[in-house]
Order: sequence, then structure tokens, then C-alpha cells
Amino acid sequence: MDTGACTAFFSENFPLWAKLSQTERGLICKMTSEEFFSKGSNIHSGSNECTGAIFIKKGCLRAYILSEDGREITLYRLYKNDICMLSASCVLKSITFDVFVDAEEDSEVYIINGKTFADIAEKNSYVKIFALETAVKRFSSVMWIMQQILFMSLDRRIALFLCEEMEKTGNRTIKLTHAEIARYTGSAREAVSRMLKYFEEEKTVELFRGGITVSDPESLKLYAEG
Amino acid sequence: MDTGACTAFFSENFPLWAKLSQTERGLICKMTSEEFFSKGSNIHSGSNECTGAIFIKKGCLRAYILSEDGREITLYRLYKNDICMLSASCVLKSITFDVFVDAEEDSEVYIINGKTFADIAEKNSYVKIFALETAVKRFSSVMWIMQQILFMSLDRRIALFLCEEMEKTGNRTIKLTHAEIARYTGSAREAVSRMLKYFEEEKTVELFRGGITVSDPESLKLYAEG
Repeated sequence: MDTGACTAFFSENFPLWAKLSQTERGLICKMTSEEFFSKGSNIHSGSNECTGAIFIKKGCLRAYILSEDGREITLYRLYKNDICMLSASCVLKSITFDVFVDAEEDSEVYIINGKTFADIAEKNSYVKIFALETAVKRFSSVMWIMQQILFMSLDRRIALFLCEEMEKTGNRTIKLTHAEIARYTGSAREAVSRMLKYFEEEKTVELFRGGITVSDPESLKLYAEG
Repeated sequence: MDTGACTAFFSENFPLWAKLSQTERGLICKMTSEEFFSKGSNIHSGSNECTGAIFIKKGCLRAYILSEDGREITLYRLYKNDICMLSASCVLKSITFDVFVDAEEDSEVYIINGKTFADIAEKNSYVKIFALETAVKRFSSVMWIMQQILFMSLDRRIALFLCEEMEKTGNRTIKLTHAEIARYTGSAREAVSRMLKYFEEEKTVELFRGGITVSDPESLKLYAEG
């Protein structure tokens, strides 16, 4: 990547930059590639690969785990200026589980070469601490999701998801299929369809092909609160 | 704690000791208490408390999460010379979920004061890296458990658990109640009883009050492999 553009971008958007030496900065710029991923494409698959540290310039990435039979559970989403470290298993050697990362929207990212990042982390403890702290933060998000999935009943889970979508988009109409909602909430599609049908009968939502309109946000909120 | 005994113990059993200054060692010894917990007693509850870093001298601790209705999911177990860092939320500020820690057997532990550990970690990057790396290792164990619970079918889950117990104790007789097995595998007791009954009918196990004898380890292994 061009050193001028790289320096300009990272010094502005990446707080760790201030803790790097000139040599380290040069090395990172040299070993960073700018990449574009279209919506739905896969960026990283599993722990054997060391894709690198993925810095999100624009768009949204989704990290998830995958069962043998293809069921997905979303662990967290990353947005502008977030960094994905679980895709750099060569930096975080104690991460031994398989994480997958897809572009959830058209996304522009910078991928810092994993080996380069790992080498710098070995010498610069700020970098190592940054990488580990990022992973521990994700640990907390993941635990939150897991508790939702394991402990919360499905009605509550789906209601909570729809409430969050409404809040995120500021729109009562949520353009997601039942299969997508099932994927995002870690449930079976059939179960989600059944629950949505139930919400429809209760006049909480209206269903249409490819989406849902929340007709009674208050009632949905009550479900979400359990 | 007595400085002589403290130094003798930690220099022998705690690799991080070599990376501490004399002052830091003295501070840790001063702020460490030796404690005994009898089987089943609670040591740490939730993220608001900063119990400290718990170093296991003898016995076994169990870390778990708890649902609102009291369901437990075991995250991992810690044995001799392991250290529990999730009980020191003042050291790992990004850990925001509630972990509970119980003594699973009569246990002797050293509890290093959380505030003291945090202060040292702020100045000594080896200590900070050690704390974070310990947490990231637990992250991997937890992900493994979660994948088991979320993705694996119950028969496989229970079979795997019984296989591991056999391996751990070297004994085909497992002295655990259905309720305990349910707790350890994150399942409902009724479901566990049903599945064990099924294994019994298949001549894989024999049930008795308070325990299980595995009569056909090979068949159990096949279930565990799915």
C-alpha cells in the first residue's frame, strides 16, 4: 500500500499508530493491502488460515461459527474503524477455534499481514496488549450472545433481535427473510417462521415476502423484556 | 501471607514470578491470602466483584455462567497450578459478563488481591500480557463448550461427557447424578435422564442410584463421535 495514504489513514483512524516506531509503521504500510469485498462474500475461514488483522474502512463484517451441518451462529459484527483480530490466529496463538468472517455489506478493508503483525507484537508490547485486549473484548460480546441463545426463550430472542434492527435502522420495516433471522439468532428456520406467525396473529408484526413490518413496537418490546 | 513461604511456592509453581521485580514480588506476597474452600462452596460471583486472581494450590474449581432461572453452564475447570483471571474483573476491564466460580472439590487456593495485581499489570507489561493471554485461552475453551452445546445433539454431548469422565478417573463407574450431568452438559435434567435411559436400553450403560457404569465403552465412543 502507498506509504503516504497508509500513514495518513492510520494516524487518523488507528489509535495504536502512536505507539509504533517509524520502522514498524513503514513495515505495516508495506505489508497492508487494500481490499474490497462485496456483500455476502467470505473473507476468512477457520483457524488454520492467518488472513491477518482486518481493519474496516467502510461497510460491515460479520464473524460467526459454523456447525458441521452448516448452521451458523453470529458472534459479533464489526463496523467502520473496528479491527478483526480473530482472523489473525498467527498473532493470537491461543485462539484455537474456527471463526468465519463474511462481508455483510459491500466493504472496504485494509488487511495487515498476519505474520508482520505477529512479528511486531513480539517486540512491541503495546501491540501485543492491543491484540489481546481486542480479543478479550470480543470474548465479552460472544458471552453475551451465548447467554442469549442458551438461556433465553425463542420469543424473547427474536423480539430482541427485531427491536435492535428497528433501532439500528430507525425503520419499522425489516427486510430480512426468516432464514436470515434464524441465522442471526442461532435458531432453526422453521422455529423462527412459527414464532413470527405467532407474532403476526398477536398483531405485533406483519409479514410480507422478504421482510417484516413491526406494527406494535410496544408489544414487541414487552416480548423482548420477557 | 508469609514472605518466605510465598516466595518459595510461587518461584516454584508460577512461571510469571521470574518476570517480577523484587518490589512487585514483595507486594504480591503481602497482598495474597491462603484460603480453603470446601467442596461445593462459592468463591466468586459475577463481574461486579473483584475477588482477585485465584491460584489453585490443590483441588479443582469450576467456572460457570448462570441464567436468570438458575440454570448453570460450566465454562471450564481449573486444576493445580492453574490461575483464574476472570475472577479479577478489575484487572481485565473488558470482561463484562458474570462468571461464577465454585470449588468442585475441597480446594486450597492463593488469592492475589485484584487491585494489587491490576496496579502491577499497569506498570509491568509481562503481567498484563499474562493476564490477557490467560483470558484468551479461556475464551478458546469456552468456545469449544459453546459449540458442543449449540451444535451437538444431546446423545453425542452426554456420551462425550461420560467418555471424558471415564478417561479422567480411569474408572467405568461415574458417580454423578442425572442432575449433575445435566448441569455439566448444559441440558435439562429430564432430557438427560431420558437419554441415559436410552443408553441403558441399548446396553451401553447401567444406571444405579447416584451413578452410572459404562458397560460398553466402545459403543459409547461411537455415540460420542456422532
